Formats: sequence, C-alpha cells, structure tokens
Amino acid sequence: MNIKEIAEELVAGCREGRTEENLGKLYADNCVSVEAMDNSGAGRETHGLDGIRGKHAWWDENFEVHDAKVDGPYLHGDDRFAVTFALDATNKMDGTRTQMSEVAVYHVADGKIVREEFFYN
Amino acid sequence: MNIKEIAEELVAGCREGRTEENLGKLYADNCVSVEAMDNSGAGRETHGLDGIRGKHAWWDENFEVHDAKVDGPYLHGDDRFAVTFALDATNKMDGTRTQMSEVAVYHVADGKIVREEFFYN
Repeated sequence: MNIKEIAEELVAGCREGRTEENLGKLYADNCVSVEAMDNSGAGRETHGLDGIRGKHAWWDENFEVHDAKVDGPYLHGDDRFAVTFALDATNKMDGTRTQMSEVAVYHVADGKIVREEFFYN
Repeated sequence: MNIKEIAEELVAGCREGRTEENLGKLYADNCVSVEAMDNSGAGRETHGLDGIRGKHAWWDENFEVHDAKVDGPYLHGDDRFAVTFALDATNKMDGTRTQMSEVAVYHVADGKIVREEFFYN
C-alpha cells in the first residue's frame, strides 16, 4: 500500500470500527506511539505494537464514546499524514463527559506506520 | 515566550489579522516552510523569513478569502504544535472558489518557530 492508501484505510477504519484490525494491517511491529504529554507517569512514548494495542484496550475499558468525528487524511510528502479527531466521550471511572479534539500525525516507512504522534491540550 | 504563548499568539494573529506582524515576532530568521507537495516546481521547501514573507504576499495577491476557520493550537511536547485551517477562498486568476482544509505543524526552538509544515491534499 502507498501512503495515500494507508492513510485512507486508517481513516476509514476509525469511522467504520476497524481500528483494532488496522493495527495489525497498517502498523509496523516496532511502531512508536507518542502522547502530547506524560499522562501516565510512564513517559510519553509507547514502543511496539503490543503496547499500542494496550493503549487501545485501556481507552475502550475506560471511555464510552458518544460521538466521533474523523477528518482527513491530510498528506505531507511521501512519508507523513495527519488526521483530526473530535470526540464526545464519558470517562467511565468518574462519569465526566468531555468534548476532546486532537491532531494525529502518522509517519510511514516501507509501507507501514512506524510512528504516531498526538497533539492536544 | 514559551511554546504555549507562541502557539496561542500565532492562532490569535491568524484570527485577528496580525499574521504578517507575527512573522517578525514569532519566526526565526532561518525558518523553513514546507508544503505538502511541490506546487510551484521549485521544490517543497522555502528557506528563510524573507521567502516566507514572499509566500504570504503571493497568497494575498492571488486569493480572496471569504471565510477562515482556525482551530487550535494543539500542543505536542515542548517543541511542536499543530493548528487546523479551513478556508473558503477564490483564486483571483481564474475565479475558482474552493473550500480548503489543512493541518499545519510548527516546530519551536529557542523561543522561535523554526519550521512550519503543511498537510493537505
């Protein structure tokens, strides 16, 4: 897959509930995921596909998503693309409902996503 | 200014018509501006603040902006931030009116913007 196909499939997967399936299909095994800040106290970076699957599992366990808007992809050269996310979600632990928006930048090498970076406040 | 102050002033300047003034205030003299693709045939990168001023002048000469929506800034660590732009503009040369959206990623070092990267299709 070229970067346009990878980017479009990632966005389609987010919209159509194939996010987990796409981790195995689109991501490199040694992919690095980088948060905007150190939310967990364990640092901003998660190394490896198993760790990234763990982040998704943590999110699914702890948040109920009421509405999600995914825009993009927006391409930059032949090795990066961006996607924007707007989420309306409730934290199941404390019941807080929040509207969140963020930008994600994905780096592609050898036909796989090798790095994802999240921008938010 | 720290990165949050720089990012917020860049966004405020875009919204309030202080974009040109902010080039001198927020950008490093050797800043690099990178387009998503080679639109001009001269490559994707423009080096230096004078060149970036030239890009702005070209845009202002050639496009009439009817509406602009600027969202963000979205921070990533202490050296990058993203801003999203949605523009409704007419190309003065051929009269084509287009709705464009893009993501911009800004890199900050030593209190100045040293690189801006545009993501679009």
